[in-house]
Amino acid sequence: MSLDRLIEKIHEKQNPTVVGLDPLLSYIPEHIKNAAREEYGGGFESAAHAIEVFNKGIIDAVCDIVPAVKPQCAYYELYGWQGLRALSRTIDYAKSKGMFVITDGKRNDIGSTMTAYAQAHLGETSLETEQSPAFGGDALTVNGYLGTDGISPVLEVCAQKDKGLFVLVKTSNPSSGELQDIETAGGEKIYEVMGGLCEKWGEKLPGKYGYSGVGCVVGATYPEQLAELRRRLPHSFFLVPGYGAQGGGAKDVLGGFDKRGLGAVVNSSRAVLCAYQKRGAPETEFAACAREEAIRMRDELMKEIGEIKIGTRL
Amino acid sequence: MSLDRLIEKIHEKQNPTVVGLDPLLSYIPEHIKNAAREEYGGGFESAAHAIEVFNKGIIDAVCDIVPAVKPQCAYYELYGWQGLRALSRTIDYAKSKGMFVITDGKRNDIGSTMTAYAQAHLGETSLETEQSPAFGGDALTVNGYLGTDGISPVLEVCAQKDKGLFVLVKTSNPSSGELQDIETAGGEKIYEVMGGLCEKWGEKLPGKYGYSGVGCVVGATYPEQLAELRRRLPHSFFLVPGYGAQGGGAKDVLGGFDKRGLGAVVNSSRAVLCAYQKRGAPETEFAACAREEAIRMRDELMKEIGEIKIGTRL
Repeated sequence: MSLDRLIEKIHEKQNPTVVGLDPLLSYIPEHIKNAAREEYGGGFESAAHAIEVFNKGIIDAVCDIVPAVKPQCAYYELYGWQGLRALSRTIDYAKSKGMFVITDGKRNDIGSTMTAYAQAHLGETSLETEQSPAFGGDALTVNGYLGTDGISPVLEVCAQKDKGLFVLVKTSNPSSGELQDIETAGGEKIYEVMGGLCEKWGEKLPGKYGYSGVGCVVGATYPEQLAELRRRLPHSFFLVPGYGAQGGGAKDVLGGFDKRGLGAVVNSSRAVLCAYQKRGAPETEFAACAREEAIRMRDELMKEIGEIKIGTRL
Repeated sequence: MSLDRLIEKIHEKQNPTVVGLDPLLSYIPEHIKNAAREEYGGGFESAAHAIEVFNKGIIDAVCDIVPAVKPQCAYYELYGWQGLRALSRTIDYAKSKGMFVITDGKRNDIGSTMTAYAQAHLGETSLETEQSPAFGGDALTVNGYLGTDGISPVLEVCAQKDKGLFVLVKTSNPSSGELQDIETAGGEKIYEVMGGLCEKWGEKLPGKYGYSGVGCVVGATYPEQLAELRRRLPHSFFLVPGYGAQGGGAKDVLGGFDKRGLGAVVNSSRAVLCAYQKRGAPETEFAACAREEAIRMRDELMKEIGEIKIGTRL
C-alpha cells in the first residue's frame, strides 16, 4: 500500500532522496520572471506562472534520477490562489514524469474537516456530477497533535486511494524539543509517544516491504534520535528534512536506514533549487545545476548506504 | 494590538461568537448550485462560485450582529485552486462588511516556511514590483508542536500588520487527550505546557484589554479544562470550537470568560450554515435561517454572560 510505490521508485533509481519544491520568487531566474511578466502583466498571475515554469524545469532536470518531489504548500499559498493553481499543475506534471509527490502541508484537524483535507490532497472531491482530484499528491505530511481523530480520516482515504502520510514526530528545528522532548510521567519523550502512535496507526495500512503507509518526519539535525527511532519504529518510513541547508550531513542521516538501505527518504530543497546561485552559474543553467546537485547528494548518500535492496522484509 | 480589534467588535455587537464558514457543497441550496452550473458549466469552477455566493449570503445575513467569521481552509482546498479563490474573495467580502476574519488553517512549519504562511494569510507577499496580500485574514489558527521556531515568524508578521493568532491548546475532539492530556515528568499536562508557551509568546504582542495577540484554541467539549485554562492563562484569548454540533452548550463555555464577559469567542459552523436544513425551511430562506440561528446562539450565550464590558483590565 501507499508508501510501497515510493519505496519501489527509491529502489529503482537507487536514490533515497526527494527534491523539495519551495519556489520562493527570489529563487527563480530573471529570464523566467521576465517572460511571465511580459505575458501576464505582473502580480500574482505572473508570479504563479513563473513558479510553474521553474518547477517544470527542475522536474525535467531530475525526474530520471530522483524518485520524488515535495512541494511545500506555504510557498504556493504565498502567491494566492494563482499559486495554488501552480501547485496543482506542478503535482500533475511531476506525476506525469513518473515522480512520487509528497505534498508538504502539515495539515491537521478533526472529523469531516480532516476528511476534507485528505480528499483535497490525496483523494477526490465530490462535485455535483463527478468525483475529481483537487490536488493529487501521493502522500501528505500531517501534524498529529489532535490524536487519532485527526489521523483516521486520512488513513481511510489512503486505504481507498493507495496513498500515504507522514506524521511530524521529531522535527529538524532548534526549538523542536520544547514540546517534543518533554519527558512524560511514564518516562517516554513526547516524540516517542507520537512515534508509537504512528506505528499503531500504520497497522491499518500495511506495506509489502515491511513499512506501513504511515511515515514519520524526523529531522537530520537530530542523528541520535533518528537512529533510535529507526530501532523503535520498524514499520515507519522516515521523511528526513534538515539535510544540507539546515546542517545535517550524510553520516547524520545514516541511522534512519535499515540494513537493506531502506527506511528513509532525505529531502533537499534550497540546495537543489538554488544550486545555480550558490555556484555563481548563469541563471539559464538553473536546471543543469539542480541536476548536478541532486546527483551530488545522491552519490554522497549512496556512498554511505552502498546498495538499496528490496524484496525481503527486515 | 491584533486581537484588540476582535475584542472591540465583540464588545460593540455584545456578541462573543464567530460563524464558521465551512461550505461543503452539500450545505449549499440547489438554486445557488444550479445558477453556478448554468453559468460556469460544472466542476470545480461552478462549485467555487456556488461557495462564494453562499458565503456572501451568510455574511450579509449576519454581519450586523456577529463580529467575526472563521473560514476553514480545508473546505476551500477541497474545491481546488478555484476553492482557494473563493476563500480569498470570501475574506475580502467579510472584511468589507466590517467583520473580523479568523482563517482556520492550523498551519505549522519553521523558519522561512512559517514566514511564508504568515505572509500569505496575515501579511503581504513580496512580488516583483509590489507588496500584495494573498489571503488577508485578521488572525490565523496555528499548531505549536514545532515550538517557538514555528511561532516567532507569525509573531513578527502580526506585530507589523496588527494581526493575531490562535494556537491549538486543548482541542474539542474525543481523542484530543492522547497527546494533549499526557502528564509530564514535571506534573503538568501537555496542553498546559502549550498554554504556558502561548502566554510567553503573547508577551511580544500585548493588547490594551489585557489579552495578547496570541490566543488559544480550547474546545467547548472540555468545560473543566476551559475554566482551568482561563485561570492559568490570563492574557490568552480563547477561540472555542465544539459548541452545538459537537455537544458543548452555553453553560459549558461560561468558564472561558472573565468577569467582564471577555476572554473567549465561541464558534458555530454547521448549526448556522445548515439552519435551513435543520428547520426544514425552504432553501431560499438559508440566509434568514442562518441569521435566526446566529441570534439564538448570541442570546443563549448573553443570557449567561450578562453584559460584555471593556475598558478595564482584569
